[in-house]
Amino acid sequence: METDDLLKQIAFIKEIDKLKYIQRKTRLFNSERNENDAEHSWHLAMMTIVLAQHSDQRIDVLKVLKMVLIHDIVEIDAGDTFIYDTAKNHTNTDEERLAAERIFGLLPKEQADEFIDIWEEFEGGITDEARFARTMDRLEPLLQNTSNNGGTWAEFDVPYQQVYNKKIAIKDGSKTIWNFAEGLLNESVEKGILKK
Amino acid sequence: METDDLLKQIAFIKEIDKLKYIQRKTRLFNSERNENDAEHSWHLAMMTIVLAQHSDQRIDVLKVLKMVLIHDIVEIDAGDTFIYDTAKNHTNTDEERLAAERIFGLLPKEQADEFIDIWEEFEGGITDEARFARTMDRLEPLLQNTSNNGGTWAEFDVPYQQVYNKKIAIKDGSKTIWNFAEGLLNESVEKGILKK
Repeated sequence: METDDLLKQIAFIKEIDKLKYIQRKTRLFNSERNENDAEHSWHLAMMTIVLAQHSDQRIDVLKVLKMVLIHDIVEIDAGDTFIYDTAKNHTNTDEERLAAERIFGLLPKEQADEFIDIWEEFEGGITDEARFARTMDRLEPLLQNTSNNGGTWAEFDVPYQQVYNKKIAIKDGSKTIWNFAEGLLNESVEKGILKK
Repeated sequence: METDDLLKQIAFIKEIDKLKYIQRKTRLFNSERNENDAEHSWHLAMMTIVLAQHSDQRIDVLKVLKMVLIHDIVEIDAGDTFIYDTAKNHTNTDEERLAAERIFGLLPKEQADEFIDIWEEFEGGITDEARFARTMDRLEPLLQNTSNNGGTWAEFDVPYQQVYNKKIAIKDGSKTIWNFAEGLLNESVEKGILKK
């Protein structure tokens, strides 16, 4: 039984290697090089352990880590959706659900169910852990874009209000981080790298 | 005080982006592309949450996650040391200690101390958490090399015994995983991708 579980887990571990090929629109800090989903997920995990103290609610850090580590795995099948792409739905598309079932379904049943639940909890964005995970997910590209002269905001002509409407989710996880993030947005407008 | 902490943490979060540029010798699964340290760290974190049930000892999974997420950050300054490089010392070189102090030292004092302690615990390899983290760190390249016709073993002419001597550390974390790993090594010898 244990070996049976292990073989399924190894198959999953090999499959998720593909996350390293999924390119995001955002670029590394002070860089032209696009970030991939595995790098992004690692960075969010690091941010979670570093910034957890600023969560407004008491959170289960292990659960947030699981969320941010797995949150983009569905993109192996479904691809990365650019957050400012207004033509495409962003949460829980059918394609992403199928991807979750196929990829997490490689794991032993109980674990597959756990991972799908965690992914859906993240996508739902309602629990304290999901909110803090989202805070991390919104903060990283904000830091990247400000380091890259506007980054994707400039590249894809995304105006201030549209950025603000996405970033405001940071506030649901941490008012301290939101104060900082809002300051960065205002600074970006002043510098002319984000257009009002 | 909270904002002061946050600014230090943001500086750290930006600095560790550099881990995405540190290339390992091992390559992605069935691939020619080298893996970088951030991708590697993400993969070990995923392996930790997926495989924790096979640990022979009861482990604090959150601590193992912290270990594998940060274990290579010192390489931003010290560079990647190839595990089969016999000319170079592998644990806790002066260069790596200085790197730990500089990079983790960007964080608020208490957190810097915690991260340095966790990194040293990993390097020490004595606690149950450090052993399981090492099990993950030894397993990933084994899986990669077997998927790549011997990978770095073939590329750098590393013989079976030398590989075995490194991989046996897997046993300290999990006998179940070691049984599987030893089978892979034997299979690799049979296939001729690892030379006895």
